[in-house]
Amino acid sequence: MPKLEPYDKRADYSYCLGLYPCHALLDSRPGAVQRLLLHPDGLGSEGVEKLRGRCAELGVREEMAERVLKRESKKDNCFAALVFEKYQLALDPEADHAVFCQISDGGNLGTACRAAVGFGYRNLAVVRPCVDVFDPHVLRASMGAFFRLNARVYDSFDEYRAEFPERETCPFMLDGSVPLNDAARNAGHPHTLVFGNEAAGLPAVFRTYGQSVRIPQSDEIDSLNLAVAASIAMYTFKNING
Amino acid sequence: MPKLEPYDKRADYSYCLGLYPCHALLDSRPGAVQRLLLHPDGLGSEGVEKLRGRCAELGVREEMAERVLKRESKKDNCFAALVFEKYQLALDPEADHAVFCQISDGGNLGTACRAAVGFGYRNLAVVRPCVDVFDPHVLRASMGAFFRLNARVYDSFDEYRAEFPERETCPFMLDGSVPLNDAARNAGHPHTLVFGNEAAGLPAVFRTYGQSVRIPQSDEIDSLNLAVAASIAMYTFKNING
Repeated sequence: MPKLEPYDKRADYSYCLGLYPCHALLDSRPGAVQRLLLHPDGLGSEGVEKLRGRCAELGVREEMAERVLKRESKKDNCFAALVFEKYQLALDPEADHAVFCQISDGGNLGTACRAAVGFGYRNLAVVRPCVDVFDPHVLRASMGAFFRLNARVYDSFDEYRAEFPERETCPFMLDGSVPLNDAARNAGHPHTLVFGNEAAGLPAVFRTYGQSVRIPQSDEIDSLNLAVAASIAMYTFKNING
Repeated sequence: MPKLEPYDKRADYSYCLGLYPCHALLDSRPGAVQRLLLHPDGLGSEGVEKLRGRCAELGVREEMAERVLKRESKKDNCFAALVFEKYQLALDPEADHAVFCQISDGGNLGTACRAAVGFGYRNLAVVRPCVDVFDPHVLRASMGAFFRLNARVYDSFDEYRAEFPERETCPFMLDGSVPLNDAARNAGHPHTLVFGNEAAGLPAVFRTYGQSVRIPQSDEIDSLNLAVAASIAMYTFKNING
């Protein structure tokens, strides 16, 4: 087996750290899993043994890798990780989509992935330049939810639009023309929610792609955190009539 | 003037880092401000000069403190900070409250503060053991929103309840008995929303304090991020009828 290098966004493999995320990866993308890394202090615990059993069934090789676990997690108590091959998936054209443009913070993207799975947005596009979606710390912030998504990285929003023309598109902007609840009440399917960069938001041209949406909020804050704004939007679109 | 020490939660002063948070502090708690710290590279920029002007009007002493700014922000491009005296405020008994019990992550608390101000929950209780609310990184995650809140730290939820007995209380729990939209539609004022620790949530005893509320979500995630859950709750309570 090749030596495991420190995580590199150019490599074709990444690390899934922690028990809960590892189970999510095994549930959703078992074919991508290459190796199980274990810490001696975790052996015998119920969670680790369950993971070992699932890997054994799949024929995934296990190995003691305390040093690699510590290096990748930057913690002493990370007891298990999976090495897996990076993948690209196609988005379902019949499903609602969430699109994240030029997200710079990995924690925000991971947190938004969690909410996306939680509220049934299983198809997620990420537009460059953006944080590396396979960075172990993004995956960890998602608590493994990333693996349950059809996620695809696009070089531009135009590339996404070329693949999915004529969808109902809702760009979220601080000065959007329609308040969230109205937009959610009137939305059809399949629709696409679009969110911009943490600092800059979406450029003005996005107004031409669909009716822009605002989340009503006090002008005593500059804006909401991006993951918070996206999560409120996804919750409301799925629950406004519930 | 005394030497500025590295931030210490036991000290009676803290640091407010960055222009936007500094303006929020000057807007809301000008009497707490003690010193303005400046970086030579920031002099002449519009934002910094505006801050200097406001401090001069208030008689706040300014000083060059490049080293302190770098140390506290861990960044090279933090151009201004305010040193301020820590304070405790009383919560408004007539207003709706948000209570955060045993929050361990400062980023979560700061992010939730931003949403709390954004959605009009201006009275916030924090129950120990919890992250230090005056930690500069919590204040920064709030983008200064913390300063716009009436925030108070309690040793226990019982201490909070003793001060505010017989309020309508909505504890948020993964297996809460009422879905969020129904709880929000039926809520009176003043009410109290209660959120628990990131990993453990609220203990079962909180069911006896009021009707527990759940945010409907797929069982394919372990839970939502805490700041996300609290923000969705606050948004929905304030906007369900809008």
